[in-house]
Amino acid sequence: MSYFSFELIHTSKKSRARVGRIHTPHGIIDTPNFVGVGTHGTLKTLDNSQVENIGLQLMFCNTYHLMLQPGTEIIRNAGGLHTFIQRNMPIITDSGGFQVFSLAYGSVADELKSKGTKKQDGMVIKITEDGVLFRSYRDGSKMLLTPETSIAAQKDLGADIMICFDELPPYHIDPSKLKTSLDRTHRWEKRSLEAHKQNPQNQALYAVIHGGVDPDLRRLSCEYLTTLDYDGFSIGGSLGKTKQEMHTMLSMVMPRLPCDKPNHLLGIGDLESIEMCVPLGIDTFDSSYPTRAARHAVLLTEKGNLKATQASNATNFGPIEEGCSCFTCQKFSLAYIHHLFKAKEMTALTLATIHNLHYMVSLMKRYRAKILNDEI
Amino acid sequence: MSYFSFELIHTSKKSRARVGRIHTPHGIIDTPNFVGVGTHGTLKTLDNSQVENIGLQLMFCNTYHLMLQPGTEIIRNAGGLHTFIQRNMPIITDSGGFQVFSLAYGSVADELKSKGTKKQDGMVIKITEDGVLFRSYRDGSKMLLTPETSIAAQKDLGADIMICFDELPPYHIDPSKLKTSLDRTHRWEKRSLEAHKQNPQNQALYAVIHGGVDPDLRRLSCEYLTTLDYDGFSIGGSLGKTKQEMHTMLSMVMPRLPCDKPNHLLGIGDLESIEMCVPLGIDTFDSSYPTRAARHAVLLTEKGNLKATQASNATNFGPIEEGCSCFTCQKFSLAYIHHLFKAKEMTALTLATIHNLHYMVSLMKRYRAKILNDEI
Repeated sequence: MSYFSFELIHTSKKSRARVGRIHTPHGIIDTPNFVGVGTHGTLKTLDNSQVENIGLQLMFCNTYHLMLQPGTEIIRNAGGLHTFIQRNMPIITDSGGFQVFSLAYGSVADELKSKGTKKQDGMVIKITEDGVLFRSYRDGSKMLLTPETSIAAQKDLGADIMICFDELPPYHIDPSKLKTSLDRTHRWEKRSLEAHKQNPQNQALYAVIHGGVDPDLRRLSCEYLTTLDYDGFSIGGSLGKTKQEMHTMLSMVMPRLPCDKPNHLLGIGDLESIEMCVPLGIDTFDSSYPTRAARHAVLLTEKGNLKATQASNATNFGPIEEGCSCFTCQKFSLAYIHHLFKAKEMTALTLATIHNLHYMVSLMKRYRAKILNDEI
Repeated sequence: MSYFSFELIHTSKKSRARVGRIHTPHGIIDTPNFVGVGTHGTLKTLDNSQVENIGLQLMFCNTYHLMLQPGTEIIRNAGGLHTFIQRNMPIITDSGGFQVFSLAYGSVADELKSKGTKKQDGMVIKITEDGVLFRSYRDGSKMLLTPETSIAAQKDLGADIMICFDELPPYHIDPSKLKTSLDRTHRWEKRSLEAHKQNPQNQALYAVIHGGVDPDLRRLSCEYLTTLDYDGFSIGGSLGKTKQEMHTMLSMVMPRLPCDKPNHLLGIGDLESIEMCVPLGIDTFDSSYPTRAARHAVLLTEKGNLKATQASNATNFGPIEEGCSCFTCQKFSLAYIHHLFKAKEMTALTLATIHNLHYMVSLMKRYRAKILNDEI
């Protein structure tokens, strides 16, 4: 068996939803699944043993942040990212492109509120055919990110799954410029693949489907990228202003991706989006939503979100959720979690994060069961 | 066997240092030992399972803080503090007096820098024979703390060891006022004992030896309090400006305490003080030093303190300390801890706290072994 493969187990009779298994050198990822975000090599407030105990099968780390701190050379010298952060399960890294561009342009949400481009002005110094020259937010030094340097960095990290270097154009972009950006992104992705093939190192490489909110360009991107030998396909760039626009776009994109390869929806993994996108056949979703929510005292339950700091929880001596098998619910009462948040104890953030992450793992298990039963 | 007892195992031939065992309803405390501070019912950044796994035999919780948040009634309704915070090992609570007065007067250190009394001015509204009327820092409401209300609060909490209600006079106090304060404190401590005896609830009660920096008053305090039926004796109040002054005072105080009862040095537990005070026969020390140090990236090792953020640690792929059996050292490299601190990840604080707390537990084990060998 190869170092990386996708096993399609079942496609729902009701939708494009599918259950599969991604085999990697560090174990299996059951799909569809949620991918936790551990930007700097840790899911915020947890250590990687806790994350493995929760059963989170895939963890997303950000090449951009790890390049700036501690530097990928240090991680390579440590024996790679798995060893450095002590994770024995699969890891996916991005190219670094997203962060460079989104820190430069601001997020789509910022842009829609017209806050974009100002805040981090000057972070990106120059975009050329070669790549992007930017300034480190840590020490102000100039850094060049190209398909080749991004792949080299991701080789240092040694994640099970890597992502091609791409440009993230701003949401408010002139359509002609979007086409120019897409063409260049395609050339960058091809160069990423070539760089990867020179030293495969048992890693897999996902392409990134781009084209912003233009259906023709999205179609073009699918057509072009699926002719190349990627191990999987991720969907990136702006997918629209609303979840409905995203749904419409993905409904068009997904049938254009090969069924025998895994796919990943980049940076989207809130509960509503997962519910909308699982039937479209998305395999993996990464998002910092559940861990960030936890730090804001928002607890995920089957009955909906619960605010830990709500006064009525002060005397709720039961767990966050009856029947939940997470460490937090097995051990502590909601009243205690409420108290820890009120007392501003960091322990509150950790216990809430454990619960929310466990919730996501369980939720995806339930999705898989439903797909196997053709209920979705 | 009674619910609470002190078993003296060995007194050194070289000093007053002694090894003993305090038996409590929630297990044994080997002495001398370090007591971790979990003000709000948790050691900062850890959950109570982690603390038990480290083997910390006694945890200090602050009645004052728990009275204000979540309120001791809630904790009583939860089944007591052990249940509420899910700790199955011994807990000690203070009277609340220390916090009321130290928040009012500022710490001794603040006073010596002439910063005292100003910052929190008006927190204490009135001190009377009955007790102290103060304003809650949480909601501004008036609260009355007396020997009886303090003991009632500590009964709600149900810690294995309680502490008498006392006054913490400021360091810069007129000698005649110090005597007045001491006499009142003695009356408060007697009332604390009487309140406790009405409902012993399998809890133990420690007196607090006071007298500030006046040896005659300290002597008087020992003489008076040892005539009453306390389960143990703690040493509180100002012990001087320097560690040497503290040592001198304790050298006089300790022989005046009964050998067959345990003692506790309140709020002092830095490495140097422990080294100085173990030979004087101190049984337990509480301090937030090791946990606070951890949050400031200071790691305790047998070779001395180590600053995690120091640049040279970026590439140290060994553990914080070779041979250390703590979870952090067993699992993660110093380079990774360094990285997590640099990346401002809360996980760094947790991992460092685990190490430092484990260090204290091991250190005290080594002290006990040395005392048993008459090396101290």
